[in-house]
Order: sequence, then C-alpha cells, then structure tokens
Amino acid sequence: MTDKRIYNFNAGPAALPLPVLGEIRDSFLNFAGSGMSITEISHRSKWFEDVINDAVARTKRILKLDDRYQVLFLQGGASLQFAMIPMNLLRDNETADYINTGTWVAKAVKEAKLLGKKVNVVASSEDKKYSYIPKNFKLNPDAAYVYITSNNTIEGTQWDKFPETGGVPLIADMSSDIMCKVMDTKPFGLIYAGAQKNIGPAGVCMVIIRDDLLKKVPDTLPSMLRYTTFSNSNSLYNTPPCFAIYTVQLVLKWLEETVGGLDKMEAVNRQKAKMLYDVLDAGGFYKGTAEKDSRSLMNVTFRLPSEDLEKKFIKEATDNGLGGLKGHRSVGGCRASIYNATGIDAIQALTDFMKAFEKKNG
Amino acid sequence: MTDKRIYNFNAGPAALPLPVLGEIRDSFLNFAGSGMSITEISHRSKWFEDVINDAVARTKRILKLDDRYQVLFLQGGASLQFAMIPMNLLRDNETADYINTGTWVAKAVKEAKLLGKKVNVVASSEDKKYSYIPKNFKLNPDAAYVYITSNNTIEGTQWDKFPETGGVPLIADMSSDIMCKVMDTKPFGLIYAGAQKNIGPAGVCMVIIRDDLLKKVPDTLPSMLRYTTFSNSNSLYNTPPCFAIYTVQLVLKWLEETVGGLDKMEAVNRQKAKMLYDVLDAGGFYKGTAEKDSRSLMNVTFRLPSEDLEKKFIKEATDNGLGGLKGHRSVGGCRASIYNATGIDAIQALTDFMKAFEKKNG
Repeated sequence: MTDKRIYNFNAGPAALPLPVLGEIRDSFLNFAGSGMSITEISHRSKWFEDVINDAVARTKRILKLDDRYQVLFLQGGASLQFAMIPMNLLRDNETADYINTGTWVAKAVKEAKLLGKKVNVVASSEDKKYSYIPKNFKLNPDAAYVYITSNNTIEGTQWDKFPETGGVPLIADMSSDIMCKVMDTKPFGLIYAGAQKNIGPAGVCMVIIRDDLLKKVPDTLPSMLRYTTFSNSNSLYNTPPCFAIYTVQLVLKWLEETVGGLDKMEAVNRQKAKMLYDVLDAGGFYKGTAEKDSRSLMNVTFRLPSEDLEKKFIKEATDNGLGGLKGHRSVGGCRASIYNATGIDAIQALTDFMKAFEKKNG
Repeated sequence: MTDKRIYNFNAGPAALPLPVLGEIRDSFLNFAGSGMSITEISHRSKWFEDVINDAVARTKRILKLDDRYQVLFLQGGASLQFAMIPMNLLRDNETADYINTGTWVAKAVKEAKLLGKKVNVVASSEDKKYSYIPKNFKLNPDAAYVYITSNNTIEGTQWDKFPETGGVPLIADMSSDIMCKVMDTKPFGLIYAGAQKNIGPAGVCMVIIRDDLLKKVPDTLPSMLRYTTFSNSNSLYNTPPCFAIYTVQLVLKWLEETVGGLDKMEAVNRQKAKMLYDVLDAGGFYKGTAEKDSRSLMNVTFRLPSEDLEKKFIKEATDNGLGGLKGHRSVGGCRASIYNATGIDAIQALTDFMKAFEKKNG
C-alpha cells in the first residue's frame, strides 16, 4: 500500500514520518502487549503514563529546556490559545505587545481584545500583504509579554532572529515551525504549537510554559482554561487526547533517533528549502511571495504568471502524485509546505516537476 | 494479533468495536485512496468533509433528531462543557437547576459557581454515596435549564425515565451512555458526550444543541468557547480532531450497519447488564452498590466481602485476560464497564470467571 502514497505538501494536517505511521498501524490492535488498542487503554494506566512522560522528556531534550519549563498537552488548537494566553497571563491593569506578521497574529489580537484586554500592535507587515517580518519597532518595556508567530503558514514568512525583549517574556505561536531548527528557548515565557504541522496529528496542542508565567494564572478561571490545571496534573486532569499524544511521542522519537536530533533536522530542512527557493529564483516563471530575508523554511509560497497557469500547475501536480500545493484560500497562489516529515525525495520530485512544467508552459 | 486481545472493561477510554479498529489499521497508510493517512489529510478536503458529514448524518438518524438540532464536535471533553454550558446558556440574571447524582455533576456545579453563575442544586443523592437517582424533587419553572448526568460512570447509576421539566430545556452529560438505548430527545436543549466511552476514542466531545439554545450564545465569549462558532462552520472553524471524528464515524457506521440500529443495541445492552446483575443478585458474595431501580446498563459497580478479596479478584481477572475491573480510585471496589462495543462474549467470560472465583473464595 505504501507504493500508492503521494508526496504530501499539505499545510496542516500534514505529512507524518512513514515509520511512525507504520508503527501505529502495526500495533493498532495490541499496543505494547496490553491486548488493547492505544485508543482503548486507560489514560491512568502505566502504558499511557509511559507515553506522555516520554513525549515530555523528549521535548525537553530536543529543545534543551531548562528546569523552569513544563511541557503540557492541551486541546482546542492554537485558536484556543489566542484566548487562554490573555486570560491567564494578561491582567486587566497590564498591556501586551503583539507583532502582527500575518493572519494568525491578527486573530490572536482579536481574541485578546474580545476579552477586553489591553493590546498594543507594536509592528505590522500588513501594509505589504504580510510578505516580510518587521525589523524596526519599539517594544514597551513594561509589557506583560511580547507575542509573535514564529512562522506564518499562510504567508510563507518566518522569524530568523527573534526580537530582543529586554527581559519581557516572549510568547510564540510555533504551530508551523516548532522543532524545525536549533533555537535558544530562554527568552520565551511560553511556546505553543498545534501538533498537526510539525510534530503530530490534529487534536493536541503542545504548550511549553515557564514557572514565572504559571505563577500569574488566576484561580478564578474555569479549570480547563487554566494552565495550572495542566501543569499540576501532568496534563492528566481529565482524559487527554491519548492517540494524538501517542503520535507526537512517536514523531519526537523519530526526530531524535532516526533523524538524529534538531541540528540534523535543521540541516535537512535548510537543504529542502534551498532546493525549492533555487527553483523560484532561477527564472521569472515562478515568483516567491515572501521577501528573501523573511522566507520560511517550512512554507514556500509562490505565484505563477497567471491564475490559469496556477490552476493547471496544481492539477497536473496532483495528477503526478504531488498533493496539497494550493495556496491558502485567503491569499491564493501556490504553497509547498515542507515540514520535518517531508523528505528530500519529495522535494526532488517537486522541483523536477516544477522545472518540467516551466519548460512546457514558460 | 487479535487472538492476544483481552476483554476490556475499562471505564473510558474503553473498548472499541474490533471491526472499527481493523478498518482503521487497514487503511491507516492510505485513507480512501487519498495516498495519505487519515492523520495527514486536510480538514478542508473532500475526504474529511465526507467523514464529518457522515458522522453528523448518522448521529441524526440514530437518535432521530429533528431539524432543530445541530451535531457539533468540540475538544476539551466533558470538563470543558462544565464551563461552556453556563458561559453560553446561563445569563447573569438567570438560574439553572442541577440534579446532583454523582462526582461529575458536582464538578459541573463547581465550574458554574466559579463563573459566578446562579445554580440551584434541586436534588442530590450524595447522602447515600450517590447510590440512587433521586425521585421526588421540585424544579424551578423559571430555570434557564435543568442539568443532569444521564449515567454516572463512577457510581454505576443511570436515569431510567428523565425528569419532567415542563418545557424547561434539559441538558444532559451523556458521556457514558449516549446511544446505549432508544430515547426521546425532544425535551433536551443540549446533549453532550466525551466520545471515549460509547462512541469513539478520547479527544473529541459530541455536542447536540437545539436552535433555541444557540440563540442565547453571547457574542462576547472567546470564539473557541462559543457554540455558535462550531454551529456556523460545521465544526470546521479551526482544525478539528480529525482522527477522533473519523473513529466516531466508523463506530456510528458499525452501530447502524453491523449492530442494526439503536433498538438492537439496546436489546444487547439489556441482555449484557442482566447477565452481570444476575450474578450479583444470585448469592451474598458479590454485592451491587447501586440501588436496584437506579442501576446502570453501562457501568456495573460491585463489592466483594473484603478489600483483600477485591484485590485478588482484580488480579486474577487480569491474569485471565479480563481487564479494567478496578473501581474508580475515589470509591474503590470493582466495576465492569460494558459499553456498546463490549460484546456478549466478554460478559460471558466475565460471569464465568466471577462464578468460578466465588466458588473458590466464597
């Protein structure tokens, strides 16, 4: 059956490593000798405890997190984090700085304002369709936090060097680039990621939170909307999304043991991105939409000379087993999402196709 | 591998139908000819639309829901519903009636009060360790809703005939007995169920809501905490828990097409429960903890003459391939959860074991 699989460039849910999918399939009726499926075991069992503890331990190792950080698993995706972050971490007498680099930051700002919280949009690239990461901006030294989206899935831009905040906790939505490259986590008070792009399936959101931020969480919030509910229970206050956490565990195991860690992963990701951007830059046929110094390693967005050619490109690519190349419905064009699980072979197949398509239609 | 599977009496996550698990496994690397795993396809794809639409349509057919009801898929489990229900449906000048039949109602009351909402606990069986469903109580005719838990997983009790509310919308947590028997849904304004007991895996919560309640939802709530966000988008406002919804779809298909519908399911469930309660009632060795007229079809709770014997019973059962028989940590004793997916064969194996154990130790 594997020979009928396509090259998957979906933006999320997205490709998962084939060995991970194979392991899930092979043990699906009998997980770890339990005589039950992973979907049937109790979340209070030793079997599941091992799964979640291993997922946490691997996250801490891969990102070199120090003891001040806790790794939590929540539900509701990034969209719920847009509300939980200000509910938990922004008091009514405080303000927070948001750097608006795309659609998802704009949504986060909207949710914070809906809660009546005081939010400053200190910089924005909306003036040029979010095609770049702002460079010159002034942060408020008294802000409760500075909020960024590290990689903009829709617009194909990514922070290269994170902003200097002078000690103000950075909060980052890393849904589409967590664990894509080596990074220093120390400036971050909170990092979160919907799993379904780089580290797992849909249905679980990883939240990495530092102890000083946990201390701010108000007791008056509903239990399921308080970070402390999860930090006090190893994410087992109620039944967690077991299957999704299990898949995350296997992806992290693959990242550590098969790929060989984050530095190796970064090298592969840089090679993959270069292969694609080189095609975009080679002639005038394909045109990258992000400014060069803001380009994403994960989402390569580009246009063709006409919308008709874009339609033809996407259709012929699909017919050739290259899926998910349509740009987000809000911006159009084309997009190749090349997350960790997308291999060099997939990029080679795509660039070969792109060159052949250009030759025929250029 | 299937021959090494155990009989699974877990309270949740719990047993799933073997044909469902087999279908997931067999198509795990290539879902519906997509060339991708169900965990890798886009939630905006035709493939996933078919999955979620089929799950909704089957729910409506199985429960004979009329056009006023919408079927939604949320995250956060029952525990998030404890907060979302009063946030969405209980205005500050209104009160709601709660009938306290167990641990989970008590938690729902706590979350509503945390939000500063006005809640009346109009009846409670806490005086006798929640061993019965209250019969004589007076409801407030002006209440915004009457809240019940239809089946009490921990205490092994279940509502047989739902309370008459005189037009006040009933709201029910049916996490542990949804679709276990034929029922009239019309008195209900909202029914919800964490999937991981009777209809699927952990990670998705089904919410069935009537249009008059949707009209009450305030615009000021965060998007992910508003029922209307989900009802306006067919539960696709953001990335849903795709794998969990897919599994629910397959379980509902099994319920309709293999079992033959809810009346057939009810007949099987009544037979299963009778087999077990007959053993409890046969002698003095096993003692059911729920009052007879309040007994659950889904969770059969019982004690043995001593805690030592209970430990021995659970250990020997486990050694004999009968898993998950330990009572909830808060109440002790033994519990056999016999949800829809638990077959007559499992009950036969359990009752045979119970009789043999009684003979040796009675």
